Amino acid sequence: MKLSTRNRLPGTITEIVKGEAATKVSLQVGDNHMVALITTESADELGLEVGSQVTALVKATDVMVLTDEGLA
Amino acid sequence: MKLSTRNRLPGTITEIVKGEAATKVSLQVGDNHMVALITTESADELGLEVGSQVTALVKATDVMVLTDEGLA
Amino acid sequence: MKLSTRNRLPGTITEIVKGEAATKVSLQVGDNHMVALITTESADELGLEVGSQVTALVKATDVMVLTDEGLA
Amino acid sequence: MKLSTRNRLPGTITEIVKGEAATKVSLQVGDNHMVALITTESADELGLEVGSQVTALVKATDVMVLTDEGLA
Amino acid sequence: MKLSTRNRLPGTITEIVKGEAATKVSLQVGDNHMVALITTESADELGLEVGSQVTALVKATDVMVLTDEGLA
Amino acid sequence: MKLSTRNRLPGTITEIVKGEAATKVSLQVGDNHMVALITTESADELGLEVGSQVTALVKATDVMVLTDEGLA
Repeated sequence: MKLSTRNRLPGTITEIVKGEAATKVSLQVGDNHMVALITTESADELGLEVGSQVTALVKATDVMVLTDEGLA
Repeated sequence: MKLSTRNRLPGTITEIVKGEAATKVSLQVGDNHMVALITTESADELGLEVGSQVTALVKATDVMVLTDEGLA
Repeated sequence: MKLSTRNRLPGTITEIVKGEAATKVSLQVGDNHMVALITTESADELGLEVGSQVTALVKATDVMVLTDEGLA
Repeated sequence: MKLSTRNRLPGTITEIVKGEAATKVSLQVGDNHMVALITTESADELGLEVGSQVTALVKATDVMVLTDEGLA
Repeated sequence: MKLSTRNRLPGTITEIVKGEAATKVSLQVGDNHMVALITTESADELGLEVGSQVTALVKATDVMVLTDEGLA
Repeated sequence: MKLSTRNRLPGTITEIVKGEAATKVSLQVGDNHMVALITTESADELGLEVGSQVTALVKATDVMVLTDEGLA
């Protein structure tokens, strides 16, 4: 099985905030903090929990590039 | 200046492939390889080059979660 | 009137889950189950109801490709 | 600092609706009304309020084109 | 006919750059410059030309918010 | 292995148009025609060919809803 999605970042879930329809999942990926907004249906079905080892996936068309530093 | 975009991953450009309208930018971000598909206009205006230090930005709504391992 | 959006999948709404800001809309599209996460403002304005005939629209840049089978 | 994101539309926040995980931010941008769905974490961290001057950002890959008029 | 897409920005096409698979469409929307990256199939089917009056559509989940000014 | 992505539509590749950076993949999914714009790197790595059986994946946040009919 192969997926076209180019960006696959392994990490650990650090927080889950569930709303009715949408759920925020926070991840630690290496030195970086990441956040995913997925459906609550999805979070329930996957049985996501704080401490779970997961992989964050991002399609290449959704990645932007920022040069230099300084954005707070 | 503050940006709502939650995911900011600092890295180094490893490859740039330019098409007429779209350009692929490959990045090394920690231990991970990332790929961005942006407009060629954007790549030119930012003066992106192999070796440039940049930050990959991704909106939280564009991050998916995969559990377990095994996806090739 | 013509729309650039390439993917148009006619179906029937099977479930609506409304949160404050976001709403999940489930659809039956042929043999497939689909899910949309839209603003609650949008769901209200369109008067979406279970049983409504609608069309799911997806921009081509948001479609990924998976080969083989087996992803749960 | 330069950002690859092509679309930058300055405006004023007219409404904020916060859910647990997701928040809707309405904006007036020139003669147009715009709506953003972002994480509530993001809305809190940026201290967004009705009346705040902000810029709406959109990646070029997320812009669709509709010809003629008439879509309600 | 009603569409869930919240952001509809009427404008005029100022430039079209066609690649094999992807096409860049530049628009003037009020005082703002906008850019869309769509499939070339789409651009051809819609018969887009410089000077055409069109509407740029953006899903609310794809709108980010930047506070203050200064991003080049 | 489980993926948060809600929309999984099995189909057959009917056409592939490769550009330098971006590739268009056309699919027949039941009675519907679908189009994906992915990186050419991805299309090459997956070894996509006309006639390949694949699954189109779409994140719920990227699905819009259109009511009634009539959009050309």
